[in-house]
Amino acid sequence: MNFHTRKWIKPEDLNPNGTLFGGRLLEWIDEEAALYAIIQLENPRTVTKYISEIDFRASAKKGDIIEIGIEPTKFGTASITLACEVRNKMTREVIITIDRIVMVGLDEHGKAKPHGKTEIEYVKNRIADSNES
Amino acid sequence: MNFHTRKWIKPEDLNPNGTLFGGRLLEWIDEEAALYAIIQLENPRTVTKYISEIDFRASAKKGDIIEIGIEPTKFGTASITLACEVRNKMTREVIITIDRIVMVGLDEHGKAKPHGKTEIEYVKNRIADSNES
Amino acid sequence: MNFHTRKWIKPEDLNPNGTLFGGRLLEWIDEEAALYAIIQLENPRTVTKYISEIDFRASAKKGDIIEIGIEPTKFGTASITLACEVRNKMTREVIITIDRIVMVGLDEHGKAKPHGKTEIEYVKNRIADSNES
Amino acid sequence: MNFHTRKWIKPEDLNPNGTLFGGRLLEWIDEEAALYAIIQLENPRTVTKYISEIDFRASAKKGDIIEIGIEPTKFGTASITLACEVRNKMTREVIITIDRIVMVGLDEHGKAKPHGKTEIEYVKNRIADSNES
Amino acid sequence: MNFHTRKWIKPEDLNPNGTLFGGRLLEWIDEEAALYAIIQLENPRTVTKYISEIDFRASAKKGDIIEIGIEPTKFGTASITLACEVRNKMTREVIITIDRIVMVGLDEHGKAKPHGKTEIEYVKNRIADSNES
Amino acid sequence: MNFHTRKWIKPEDLNPNGTLFGGRLLEWIDEEAALYAIIQLENPRTVTKYISEIDFRASAKKGDIIEIGIEPTKFGTASITLACEVRNKMTREVIITIDRIVMVGLDEHGKAKPHGKTEIEYVKNRIADSNES
Repeated sequence: MNFHTRKWIKPEDLNPNGTLFGGRLLEWIDEEAALYAIIQLENPRTVTKYISEIDFRASAKKGDIIEIGIEPTKFGTASITLACEVRNKMTREVIITIDRIVMVGLDEHGKAKPHGKTEIEYVKNRIADSNES
Repeated sequence: MNFHTRKWIKPEDLNPNGTLFGGRLLEWIDEEAALYAIIQLENPRTVTKYISEIDFRASAKKGDIIEIGIEPTKFGTASITLACEVRNKMTREVIITIDRIVMVGLDEHGKAKPHGKTEIEYVKNRIADSNES
Repeated sequence: MNFHTRKWIKPEDLNPNGTLFGGRLLEWIDEEAALYAIIQLENPRTVTKYISEIDFRASAKKGDIIEIGIEPTKFGTASITLACEVRNKMTREVIITIDRIVMVGLDEHGKAKPHGKTEIEYVKNRIADSNES
Repeated sequence: MNFHTRKWIKPEDLNPNGTLFGGRLLEWIDEEAALYAIIQLENPRTVTKYISEIDFRASAKKGDIIEIGIEPTKFGTASITLACEVRNKMTREVIITIDRIVMVGLDEHGKAKPHGKTEIEYVKNRIADSNES
Repeated sequence: MNFHTRKWIKPEDLNPNGTLFGGRLLEWIDEEAALYAIIQLENPRTVTKYISEIDFRASAKKGDIIEIGIEPTKFGTASITLACEVRNKMTREVIITIDRIVMVGLDEHGKAKPHGKTEIEYVKNRIADSNES
Repeated sequence: MNFHTRKWIKPEDLNPNGTLFGGRLLEWIDEEAALYAIIQLENPRTVTKYISEIDFRASAKKGDIIEIGIEPTKFGTASITLACEVRNKMTREVIITIDRIVMVGLDEHGKAKPHGKTEIEYVKNRIADSNES
């Protein structure tokens, strides 16, 4: 699993009890899944279709730094399935895990659009390829 | 299921494709579940422990009004389990459903705290009762 | 008066003194009035025209849950007048009251648009009616 | 009336109809009134107690620049009363006017605290005075 | 230098250490520079092109009131250069200084657009002039 | 340079011209610099002291995905100096570059605190080391 985006937990991210507001964390995860899927499917019209069960294993507090990991697990015809894990950057303690987030690429009419992808591609390789041609 | 909180979808709630950002919707649901649980358990230290699978059945667009429904389905020793449905207020189309959101009440040390509740109570009845005594 | 939308007061909603920021509360009330009027007038182009005097009767603090009540008091040609009360959900203490919020429905040119309504309608009845026809 | 704070209307400040969200404007006014009162009363614990009727005379759109004017009109024992006008910076068109916003200074127990002020003071004069002594 | 916009530092503006989050301050400065340039160049399509070095000389804390000063220092063909100083309104302590913020006016194709301005103009004079004609 | 955090540009991040608001970008950079420095210095009380000149080389638009790169360039007694580059994730076009961001670690009294670091450390190595002992 690759961990990219990091967040610094600020007062605006806390619930009234002073720990990380769960809703904020879900918002961050959904954005990370969306942008990961957009990059892989090369389709900006990519939406969240399904999220499997979410287990809140630990909390986080003000000043903690967390990192969000995403790993693709399956390519469907128009979809990509992602696994997600959020952990504390300093201690590596796991905060949340989600087995499957299904993102679907749409065409301009909002219909599922086949993407023809079967494996992860890295942007640098795409650019290298296009430079070579 | 009782539908209380309503949201008016404003530009700040949209994803770049111009539909309701899924992360924002999850944030709203988590807040609604939290405050419902706090009222029922009469414990402000109530946190989200688990969310079952989430099915995004329809989207919503700028200017739509949605309403969030919550229904308690089970009382555990220290927890309460809630079902959730979000729907479009005007058309009643269902946007999202979640079978189980488990909220747990904590004591001041962050440990699960038994609540002794077995059924829904309405605040007005609590107040009436205390007025009578 | 019907109380629908509820808010959980989080750190981001506080003023520097640690109580609910009045400006945030006014923002919540204006949104609730707007969406209530949109539903009643069945016109998404509904804007706030006038708010009568606002009396801040009590404050609220972090972790409190408040609920916003709206009641229609008058139907004008293109407008609807609403009364508003915000109260603490747990104690029922009144936080703020506003006698009249005048919302006006506009047409696509931004002009006042007669709505032909004279009393409150419930969405479920509208849907039932259209199902019957 | 002195016009100080200016705002640039960004997409996050719009209602779904694409004009300035009234609730956001009220939030800005309340903040401006609060900081004006804090400066005058030299008391950081200053809260909004009352706002007289609000007339929305014109709207504003994305990209407009507005300025918020405040003028003190009365000094009470523990309070200060302010008039407010918001206008479009480019056209000087008036967007909103409020005759009276009553701000009250509190002591550390939350009780009204007499301030002994009877007229406006400018911070530069205060600093000059303290430099001379 | 003219000090216009003021901000009241609220919990949502703090970093996890409880002082003003530097990123928030930069956001406020960029907005103030943008709106100042838009007013001077009479061109709403004005963007930030360059910011010279930024020295964080002092911090600010919750409840402080700061004011943002802007002064034009140079008019280029399509640009305006601004100096900026942010200070604590109560103590006049300087929080941040920036020597040069270069704002450029663009035409509808995103190209630099000559503005023909060589000195500061005040909006009230523009309006007076147009009233006289 | 390592590129970690990614952002999906949403409507709330735009200026009124429909491109990425520069102030929002500066806010994101400051957060990324802060959390990078906190991890390296192992000190949560780390603040921004200085930012060298900022060149806005390209803009970004709604729906773009950007990534923020940070590279440490110098360890001072109590400080760490970072270089920063923000680029478009899809095209690798550079949006902004900053040569030096100086972050300083503080002790509990707000004084500069020597950190004893001279080179980058990776958290996984720290954890491995402590597991071995």
